[in-house]
Amino acid sequence: MSTCIATVCLSGSLTEKLTAASRAGFDGVEIFENDLLASPLTPEEIRARCADLGLSIDLYQPMRDIEAVPADEFTRNLRRARHKFELMRRLGADTVLVCSSVSPFALDDNDLAAEQLSRLADLAQEHDIRVAYEALAWGRHISTYDHAWNVVQTADHPALGTCLDSFHILSRDTDPKGIEDIPGEKVFFLQLADAPRLAMDVLQWSRHYRCFPGQGDFDIAGLLKQVLRTGHTGPLSLEVFNDVFRQAEAAPTAVDAHRSLLLLQENAGVAQLPAPAVPSGIAFAELATPDAQPITEVLSALGFARTARHRSKPVDLWQQGQARILVNTGTAARRESTALAAIGLESPAPAAAARRAEALLTPVLPRRRTPEDVPLDAVAAPDGTELFFCATGHPELPDWQNDFTFADEYVAAAARAASADEAALGRIDHLALTQPWHHFDEAILFHRGVLGLSPQESVDVADPYGLLRSRAVSTAEGAVRIVLTVGATPTDGDAPAQHIAVTTDDVVTAARRYRAAGGRLLPIPANYYDDLAARYALPAHELERYRELGILYDRGAGGAFRHCYTRTVGRLFFELFQRDPGYQGYGAQNAPVRLAAQHAA
Amino acid sequence: MSTCIATVCLSGSLTEKLTAASRAGFDGVEIFENDLLASPLTPEEIRARCADLGLSIDLYQPMRDIEAVPADEFTRNLRRARHKFELMRRLGADTVLVCSSVSPFALDDNDLAAEQLSRLADLAQEHDIRVAYEALAWGRHISTYDHAWNVVQTADHPALGTCLDSFHILSRDTDPKGIEDIPGEKVFFLQLADAPRLAMDVLQWSRHYRCFPGQGDFDIAGLLKQVLRTGHTGPLSLEVFNDVFRQAEAAPTAVDAHRSLLLLQENAGVAQLPAPAVPSGIAFAELATPDAQPITEVLSALGFARTARHRSKPVDLWQQGQARILVNTGTAARRESTALAAIGLESPAPAAAARRAEALLTPVLPRRRTPEDVPLDAVAAPDGTELFFCATGHPELPDWQNDFTFADEYVAAAARAASADEAALGRIDHLALTQPWHHFDEAILFHRGVLGLSPQESVDVADPYGLLRSRAVSTAEGAVRIVLTVGATPTDGDAPAQHIAVTTDDVVTAARRYRAAGGRLLPIPANYYDDLAARYALPAHELERYRELGILYDRGAGGAFRHCYTRTVGRLFFELFQRDPGYQGYGAQNAPVRLAAQHAA
Repeated sequence: MSTCIATVCLSGSLTEKLTAASRAGFDGVEIFENDLLASPLTPEEIRARCADLGLSIDLYQPMRDIEAVPADEFTRNLRRARHKFELMRRLGADTVLVCSSVSPFALDDNDLAAEQLSRLADLAQEHDIRVAYEALAWGRHISTYDHAWNVVQTADHPALGTCLDSFHILSRDTDPKGIEDIPGEKVFFLQLADAPRLAMDVLQWSRHYRCFPGQGDFDIAGLLKQVLRTGHTGPLSLEVFNDVFRQAEAAPTAVDAHRSLLLLQENAGVAQLPAPAVPSGIAFAELATPDAQPITEVLSALGFARTARHRSKPVDLWQQGQARILVNTGTAARRESTALAAIGLESPAPAAAARRAEALLTPVLPRRRTPEDVPLDAVAAPDGTELFFCATGHPELPDWQNDFTFADEYVAAAARAASADEAALGRIDHLALTQPWHHFDEAILFHRGVLGLSPQESVDVADPYGLLRSRAVSTAEGAVRIVLTVGATPTDGDAPAQHIAVTTDDVVTAARRYRAAGGRLLPIPANYYDDLAARYALPAHELERYRELGILYDRGAGGAFRHCYTRTVGRLFFELFQRDPGYQGYGAQNAPVRLAAQHAA
Repeated sequence: MSTCIATVCLSGSLTEKLTAASRAGFDGVEIFENDLLASPLTPEEIRARCADLGLSIDLYQPMRDIEAVPADEFTRNLRRARHKFELMRRLGADTVLVCSSVSPFALDDNDLAAEQLSRLADLAQEHDIRVAYEALAWGRHISTYDHAWNVVQTADHPALGTCLDSFHILSRDTDPKGIEDIPGEKVFFLQLADAPRLAMDVLQWSRHYRCFPGQGDFDIAGLLKQVLRTGHTGPLSLEVFNDVFRQAEAAPTAVDAHRSLLLLQENAGVAQLPAPAVPSGIAFAELATPDAQPITEVLSALGFARTARHRSKPVDLWQQGQARILVNTGTAARRESTALAAIGLESPAPAAAARRAEALLTPVLPRRRTPEDVPLDAVAAPDGTELFFCATGHPELPDWQNDFTFADEYVAAAARAASADEAALGRIDHLALTQPWHHFDEAILFHRGVLGLSPQESVDVADPYGLLRSRAVSTAEGAVRIVLTVGATPTDGDAPAQHIAVTTDDVVTAARRYRAAGGRLLPIPANYYDDLAARYALPAHELERYRELGILYDRGAGGAFRHCYTRTVGRLFFELFQRDPGYQGYGAQNAPVRLAAQHAA
């Protein structure tokens, strides 16, 4: 189906918005009146620009408070409409949106509404224009889609149809079943917006918190199926008012928007995408650093051993159990300080995973950097992290390890160190990545839609300098877990903190060894342990060990959880992490204390 | 009355919070458990730090989900309480807050709640501690102050009383009348928070949108009077959860907080402040600039004449009608680019106005910079703008003009230019100032409480790169009007735009003259005028003039409004402004077009 986006969804001047929509692959746009008024281009120039960009103008939005008004006001409205219809001819737009009146002077009179809409449609028809009438959820008298359709039926005019808007329908919990009774040719337009379920005034909710399909709580795919059963074939058009998107750069927002429509069509069963190949583990985490010394000190102290070196690039593999860290000191390292640059996702079908990512507008990275490299499929996540779809030790798949020369003695040493040692680090439990502030919703949708990970509940975490939002995405069994966070304000993303949590079955011993090897643990205040004693009847010696090492503890429904933190190198720190089998969380309860300790460190 | 603030109101570490509270003049603090847990100081050290800072610890907040629970859970709760009471002894805090249970396991059993609270109070009494029981608005079974008081009455324990919280009471629209039936000695604590009226889930509303008294829509003074009628004499304590305050610097937030309590006491009639001396006009606007050339070019083109020079400083007075602009090129100019540095407020009682400002914690500026200057009372507004309380031509008051040497020929020329000329600029209609993002609520309260200006409704204005908030404060007759705005994100305040709107009775002629004199007007897109033609039946020649000059037009309930803008110099631009007598607004309808035009310029 063709796709369309309202200019109000994107930031910037009208031409910035149009360019972003075109580059992201949209077929058309809805032009909001304010964007046109503020543009120095004439309607003819806007029309030409859209044509150059391959965009149709599917809708124009200038009409408010038109119908069910006293006669003299309606005369003024018709006068205004004539001007707008002439403008639309210049613009090359053939459908105009009319929202149900919110005017305090509007009358509760369906027949009058139908009659005046019919007269408006007469005028529209003279200009070859169609009028799409939509019920605003906060309309003065007409606020449901079935009521609006009822008025359109009464008017019974060929140039008058209805516009369906998912937000207005689903925010009011109207039963959308009745949509199927509307003939498809009378659905003149379809606007789509999702939203988180918020218990708040519907007007404020609509104006500030709409989001793209799949980013909120509405069943947009279900609604779309119902609309398609009417026989409607028009574009899928996004109309999203969102305070964050208004501030964000238009280009990535447009990509996010278009991706949401592709996923929506897949969910509704009207388009096929390459099937997801859900990752089955984290093959490696790759750190880029301008100076390997500090981070390899931490890795050594944690018990990692350097087991291999890349054959053509300055990249070392550090390994312990199934936890693999690549340390890249090459010029490819984009970051200024030590940071996580790439994640190797163990994939059952790397090529298929990359095809899906590409179909979902994800930038694809070169398959091989040098001719002798293993051809690995890689894409860029919204925060710039490179994601490699790869395999470890599967003969039928390209194995990333083939790029590395393993030193036998190191491998043997690493194996010895790890074998039958409960305190050894086993694997990467999760990665925590701060996302760009304006693209948090995009990041969640990306990880869900492109990678096939499931988002958990969003939680607020109190940092001493503001509330952070945090949301984990993971596979069903937790083989891949990524915690996406976003700071309190846009500028908090300037130097995002990241961390790698590595599992151990004995965090006390692991922490002691790390310290004995010269590693520094994040100190946790004594008051925290006094509180722990008040909350749980932990044996005194156990509590004493936690206090000594700065180990945090918590208990959830599924079991207990113990963890501690290394010092930060660049933007990165490590977490040692002992999880009872039933515990599914990430220790958010302890995050405020950890964050305060990091600020104080 | 003594004043207190909860540590959760302020950002930073516990010691940052305590220091800010002390410096702002608070007598005590409520310590939130998380702030203590995250602090490296022992309870004894915290106690000593508070004593050093002159702060009492009026309340400790560690208790949740205590009462009306099954016996084994209550046993665990008592165990935990014992730890906390011991901690409170170390801390030197004698009152603990217990919020009504939100646990899904809590039972709907008043007698059980009373019995368990009574047992908790037994334990508290052993530690010389009092338990203040408060109904959370979202409590599982107990959610109103009268219900909580009923349980306290049933328990009838000397160490158990109630805590009243204005948010929990007023957010639920509970009738606060019943408060007066509670004996004052059983009101163990009083927490105050205001909030804007928001139709949203009360828990989210409380956690993110509380504000200081006078910054929201609740009648906190009315509630306070009712509480005082009980005979309660305890501290007035602020407990405000606010996402913005959490991010803001602690020091100014604490000042804002304390100011709100001073104003609250004045409103409730329990404390006297120097009475407000509401300004009666704008005597002058003072611009600081590193280079006077560009701005004086604009002033000249606007028809201002240089009429006087400061006797001891590099400050010129530019004048037209009653509009007076000082151009300061001295080293005192703090700003890096041309910006509004000070406002002269015509005051009926300058000294009294300054005394009130000082009593309300406003930084007072030196009365005279050099020995020969007129002693002018001046203070600093929250955004750093200097406010001079002054008089123009009142022999009984210190006249700021006495610092200036007037050149007769200039004065005469200025008078000739202005006399009987409808297009001449008459006076400063309003000043528009972008406020620091984290201190917008503070700025509103400052202008209302300190200066005696009345805030109008807050409006959202769509900028191409985000929504701006704007709120005007003014005197009843509009002699002083200041429009306070705040950008979409915290960083937007880095280079705040400011403007000075000057009245004319003939904006078309004034704009033409400005252009003829070499001034550049902000160009407005032609599409705007096509829309104007659609909206209003303006005569074609009138519309043509507006189009030619970039004059914006709108009509409100009270009349019409015409305005246009100069180019921006540094951070500053001018608005030429023709207001029908009945029009009370600031042309917010046109702001999106103006903002887009400025971005494009």
